[in-house]
Amino acid sequence: MRSGSNPLSSLFFPKTAYKSPSMALIVQKFGGTSVANIERIRNVAERVKREIAAGNQVVVVLSAMSGVTNQLVDYCGQVSPLLTPEALAEYDAVVSTGEQVTVGLLALVLQAQGVPARSWLGWQVPIRSDDTFSKARIDTIDAEALHKALKAGVLPVIPGFQGVTADGRITTLGRGGSDTSAVAIAAALKADRCDIYTDVDGVYTTDPRIVSKARKLNKVAYEEMLEMASLGAKVLQTRSVEMAMKHHVRVQVLSSFSFEPGTMLVEEEEVLERRLITGIAYSRGDARVTLREVPDSPGVAAKVFGPLAEQEINVDMIVQNVNADGKATDITFTVPRTELDRTTAAIKALNIGKFTTDANVAKISVIGVGMKTHSGIAQKMFQVLAEKNINILVISTSEIKISVLIDEAYTELAIRALHTAYGLDGE
Amino acid sequence: MRSGSNPLSSLFFPKTAYKSPSMALIVQKFGGTSVANIERIRNVAERVKREIAAGNQVVVVLSAMSGVTNQLVDYCGQVSPLLTPEALAEYDAVVSTGEQVTVGLLALVLQAQGVPARSWLGWQVPIRSDDTFSKARIDTIDAEALHKALKAGVLPVIPGFQGVTADGRITTLGRGGSDTSAVAIAAALKADRCDIYTDVDGVYTTDPRIVSKARKLNKVAYEEMLEMASLGAKVLQTRSVEMAMKHHVRVQVLSSFSFEPGTMLVEEEEVLERRLITGIAYSRGDARVTLREVPDSPGVAAKVFGPLAEQEINVDMIVQNVNADGKATDITFTVPRTELDRTTAAIKALNIGKFTTDANVAKISVIGVGMKTHSGIAQKMFQVLAEKNINILVISTSEIKISVLIDEAYTELAIRALHTAYGLDGE
Repeated sequence: MRSGSNPLSSLFFPKTAYKSPSMALIVQKFGGTSVANIERIRNVAERVKREIAAGNQVVVVLSAMSGVTNQLVDYCGQVSPLLTPEALAEYDAVVSTGEQVTVGLLALVLQAQGVPARSWLGWQVPIRSDDTFSKARIDTIDAEALHKALKAGVLPVIPGFQGVTADGRITTLGRGGSDTSAVAIAAALKADRCDIYTDVDGVYTTDPRIVSKARKLNKVAYEEMLEMASLGAKVLQTRSVEMAMKHHVRVQVLSSFSFEPGTMLVEEEEVLERRLITGIAYSRGDARVTLREVPDSPGVAAKVFGPLAEQEINVDMIVQNVNADGKATDITFTVPRTELDRTTAAIKALNIGKFTTDANVAKISVIGVGMKTHSGIAQKMFQVLAEKNINILVISTSEIKISVLIDEAYTELAIRALHTAYGLDGE
Repeated sequence: MRSGSNPLSSLFFPKTAYKSPSMALIVQKFGGTSVANIERIRNVAERVKREIAAGNQVVVVLSAMSGVTNQLVDYCGQVSPLLTPEALAEYDAVVSTGEQVTVGLLALVLQAQGVPARSWLGWQVPIRSDDTFSKARIDTIDAEALHKALKAGVLPVIPGFQGVTADGRITTLGRGGSDTSAVAIAAALKADRCDIYTDVDGVYTTDPRIVSKARKLNKVAYEEMLEMASLGAKVLQTRSVEMAMKHHVRVQVLSSFSFEPGTMLVEEEEVLERRLITGIAYSRGDARVTLREVPDSPGVAAKVFGPLAEQEINVDMIVQNVNADGKATDITFTVPRTELDRTTAAIKALNIGKFTTDANVAKISVIGVGMKTHSGIAQKMFQVLAEKNINILVISTSEIKISVLIDEAYTELAIRALHTAYGLDGE
């Protein structure tokens, strides 16, 4: 792992490697609601000063004021179909301004309160990315200037979500990219921790709006967090979790509106409290497609899924059953609900038989690294759902996750029953 | 002139000097009201396409959407006293985003309409400035990238008002700096013309709100425009006129809301229509200070004006009269009205006698290069004002201007009488 071919490898070999031996270095990232107005930016400054008062060095990464990026995206959409790299490059120049405003303002607030601080824009650090405008990926971060600043006692304030190409054009990392920026900067600086401040106070065993007894988790393994994306997407962007896992960055998710500790993303071994199941995730974003009585010949799957792959339709769960007579097969799979129309058109074009679709489905997943060493977890899931008369349409599993597709109407019932059955209820 | 020590000298020696021999190169600059919303940005694109259709090459310079810069300035003022270079550097990073948005959007509009276009931010061109953050001055403009773009058929869209320091920090040029940017870029590119689109349709013989018969001028000499700053400030920033004069840039001021030709700034020799007076300017921004019976000894003026200079209070008109007995002197001068309190304090501290101040004064100026070769112009001015019983408090003159200070209440009366007397009334 982390071989020379890793584009992020330079993160691990900064030209200068300064970190005060006696102080911890913390990257603090604040999301859009945390910097939504001047008052909240002042609040962020208080958070920063708390960390400094605790004896730590701090680097801050910020999102744009909430709503501002949407406004800028809307402007661009009004004037362009945004289909070419040239157009997306301009889009990036426009939408990256939201973060430029907040970093300047926070630096001003900190300076006014006696904390030497300076903004570094993506191109000033520089945070080098590829040139996939509007959804660029970070290649390398040159930590030299930031290390120098820290050594000189100047606190760097860095905009999330943005980078710069090799030939000096601004890029953005796509929605949620600010989390990824923060983790990448933490990796480049070898920070002791990356605190992601948001409007929720951590990762829960499941959605607290559905299960009032959902508990906040103190620790979650990176792999678990990735599987909990359907819950976690609201909390932490998937790419940032992947990057944290890859570079062993200790990430904490916590609320900028309370002083409670949040949820820490850690290595699997660090999840000390041995539990079978960590959480229950769900998704209402899928749709089911079932092909009936497809002639069961070799290559039938390729014939069906090839055209979908070509159109970049992301197929998730797949089940294939041979019929009783052995001559035909049923194939069921799921696609993102937003892609159902395109999928239907592609299947029709194949002209290989009858098919039905259903957008009213939900995917329920039980997740936990404990699954690796314990059996009977899947059996319990099927049993609980059966007791509630919930029909399972499709099953898929991974090493640390079991997912089932069910009728959407049973979503809450299924989650509550499973939450209780796996002993996740709090209080 | 334009010796090697001129910091803008590199404008005249671009590394590459590309300009299509058969096409004229026009820099078009659009102000904040011209890009106030998406609809108006589309309107700007129409202007650009008209110029292209006429067979010209075009470079566009833009302001921020009107109101946006004020909002950003207000944010900064809310969180910082903005007193240090570090604070002003952050201020510049924040307020420069307004232009970054409009250049990206116009590039998108042009691309969507089939015109290859690309934004170049100040640091991308680069437009090098000194590091006087918030009111930086342009040092050099590297025209190489822009020349290459033009040669490749790509239209550059450049934000006004911004530059970058030698060590890569964003600067802004101060209010009205977008005009200066446009003229500097026109000089660097050796453009054939710099069209400044604004919300007025040119420079008038005087303020049309005061004199309904005021006429739009087809041509104004640079020197005249500088003297007409009190009118022109609303039209064209003084620094941009100085730069145009220095570098012989043909500047046209015209409206982005009509298709009438505007006013052209030209060399003095080019003002073909020989007229005695070009226009009548006025200013209500001054205050009068009179020191009475100051002992008339050598060095008294230095004693008075030294402390004001030290405090960077800009003294404009000065008159000194010796009293009848030859032992004492009266000194009258004007300062910006906003500096009157500081001036009063400074004079009091000198403890050299009685003094009076008057903030209710107006400065009326008649301006014209024709004055150089014609006499009797001042005499006519004094006569016209006397006929209207308007008392002249102070007189000052330059080669192409006569200014008088009068009671503010007579401002309109004086302007109207002079406008008629010098034959400037239209229709």
